[in-house]
Amino acid sequence: AELSPEGDQVFLLEQRELPGVERYVTLGTAAEVAEGIRAMVVRGAPAIGIAAAYGMALAARAAQTEDAEGYLAAMRQAGAILDAARPTAVNLSWAVRRALALAASHAHQGGAERAEAMAALGRAIHRDDVEACRAMGRLGAAHMPDEGAVLTHCNAGALATGGYGTALGVIRAAIEAGKRIRVLADETRPYLQGARLTAWELQKDGVNVEVLADSMAGWLMQRGEIKAVVVGADRIARNGDVANKIGTYAVACLAKHHGIPFYVAAPWSTVDLATPDGSAIPIEERSSEEVAVIGGKRMMPEGVRARHPAFDVTPAALVTAIFTERGAAAPGEIARLAG
Amino acid sequence: AELSPEGDQVFLLEQRELPGVERYVTLGTAAEVAEGIRAMVVRGAPAIGIAAAYGMALAARAAQTEDAEGYLAAMRQAGAILDAARPTAVNLSWAVRRALALAASHAHQGGAERAEAMAALGRAIHRDDVEACRAMGRLGAAHMPDEGAVLTHCNAGALATGGYGTALGVIRAAIEAGKRIRVLADETRPYLQGARLTAWELQKDGVNVEVLADSMAGWLMQRGEIKAVVVGADRIARNGDVANKIGTYAVACLAKHHGIPFYVAAPWSTVDLATPDGSAIPIEERSSEEVAVIGGKRMMPEGVRARHPAFDVTPAALVTAIFTERGAAAPGEIARLAG
Repeated sequence: AELSPEGDQVFLLEQRELPGVERYVTLGTAAEVAEGIRAMVVRGAPAIGIAAAYGMALAARAAQTEDAEGYLAAMRQAGAILDAARPTAVNLSWAVRRALALAASHAHQGGAERAEAMAALGRAIHRDDVEACRAMGRLGAAHMPDEGAVLTHCNAGALATGGYGTALGVIRAAIEAGKRIRVLADETRPYLQGARLTAWELQKDGVNVEVLADSMAGWLMQRGEIKAVVVGADRIARNGDVANKIGTYAVACLAKHHGIPFYVAAPWSTVDLATPDGSAIPIEERSSEEVAVIGGKRMMPEGVRARHPAFDVTPAALVTAIFTERGAAAPGEIARLAG
Repeated sequence: AELSPEGDQVFLLEQRELPGVERYVTLGTAAEVAEGIRAMVVRGAPAIGIAAAYGMALAARAAQTEDAEGYLAAMRQAGAILDAARPTAVNLSWAVRRALALAASHAHQGGAERAEAMAALGRAIHRDDVEACRAMGRLGAAHMPDEGAVLTHCNAGALATGGYGTALGVIRAAIEAGKRIRVLADETRPYLQGARLTAWELQKDGVNVEVLADSMAGWLMQRGEIKAVVVGADRIARNGDVANKIGTYAVACLAKHHGIPFYVAAPWSTVDLATPDGSAIPIEERSSEEVAVIGGKRMMPEGVRARHPAFDVTPAALVTAIFTERGAAAPGEIARLAG
């Protein structure tokens, strides 16, 4: 996500059309940004947090002529619309909360000033996220193998963040540090973020990447081909339980079964200390159609439904370590990084 | 697969176009049948064994004017072509071997007589397979839960066999016996046999079936929704190791992790006592394109390759029991059923 210099438009790379088409969509209101998040034009917990912050900037600009009360009402409404777009990734409500706190603090200032400050907040959240990715990348890189294949699930890369990536940031940093790592990317049904996005951005970087159907990871582990797993997160509970893209839990079980380390990389904005454990994390259910139809073609009989939990929860016990910009920690120790 | 009454054509339901299109292809030579098996017009270990037997019948018909020596040479050549079509399912070489044994025993008979006998062998292998499915279904049904969801992977149904199915035969028999079972069908990437075929044939039978992406099974197990797993097999080694569609191994690991019984149903023709254990089973590698392109659309960047092991091996230790028409057995005891 990018905010225009005038603060009146948000640009989103249309991720649903990658890798075939590279196209940006232009959004002019917070409601349009919310719809872009809901429809997964942009996805990835940190990226939707950034997009939401930019959406709040659009709302502040639209409310320039409002008095303080009208401004706060408009911002609260925009925040509610953005917050409702998707339930699982906590970065969304985290960004909205930061924007609303700023709104409360500056509601009595002039409209242009408020809009400018809200745009600046969005850009700061964006910039901080890239820095967080770099920092957790450096920390996590030390845990990567010196050579061999690292498995990742979904896309936790530049496309899912402000840039550089969380899980892919760890891999990028390891490669920058001279480790000879190649990447095995789960294709990640139903949206194929691994095949479409992870493969695309790693190929651009010249990283050796191969795609596998999600069902193949267990077998490649059994054959000794996978040295480590690293994934991103949509929400990390206080006890270290990790919500992430559906299929992450199965990968974590398989890694445990094969004695392979399983790492999670996420910015601190993904850690939700208000959620005691994974059972309290809302798991988004999306439509059957998104599973049934692939690339425009229906792959199931009409009248049969597909299940579509969009996320799952990996218990802390299956996680070797979590990397954040505040440090690396065993999942059970994550709350200590709150400082 | 069906052989025409004249024994001069084999009809295969074009399974690659299901469920959108129901179309039969007509094949006139053993080489065409081999190509249909290689290209997965027909798939499923018992079904390709039957198709191969019918292919041998076409070869016998084509060699009617040959003398004994010419007939045997033609049959050996047809057998070699069919046998090479796919490596993992042992039913293919089993059927070819039976046809070649018959050819050796009747090579000196008249051409029409030989062709008729070879067609009769194909029909007997077909009929025996349906009976085997019914028998293992009755045996396996007793092991199914009285109610709840049973998970299956790939298609081990009527479409994969002479009819009724192996894993789906067990489920059908359990439902016929009054058990209130619903089916969760892994979509089974890359070919989507679960979404396209299992859902299609169970819907036709009025069985409650839902499809899930392969990555979802672990999470549904964790949520307590899956009571048992039942799958087919492409080859069962003497020690009880089971080769089956890629992803089966991961499902078996997940079932073990969650304490859920994992059953295999297969005709005796799938048991290969000449193979000591799973490490001796050849695992077919298929093309990257079959993973990269879904429904005619490329879902990965050009220049990135996908892995495509078509099968995996589930060690006997992860298998609760194997159902065959000769009885149910713990996997380590399977050789005892040889009798």
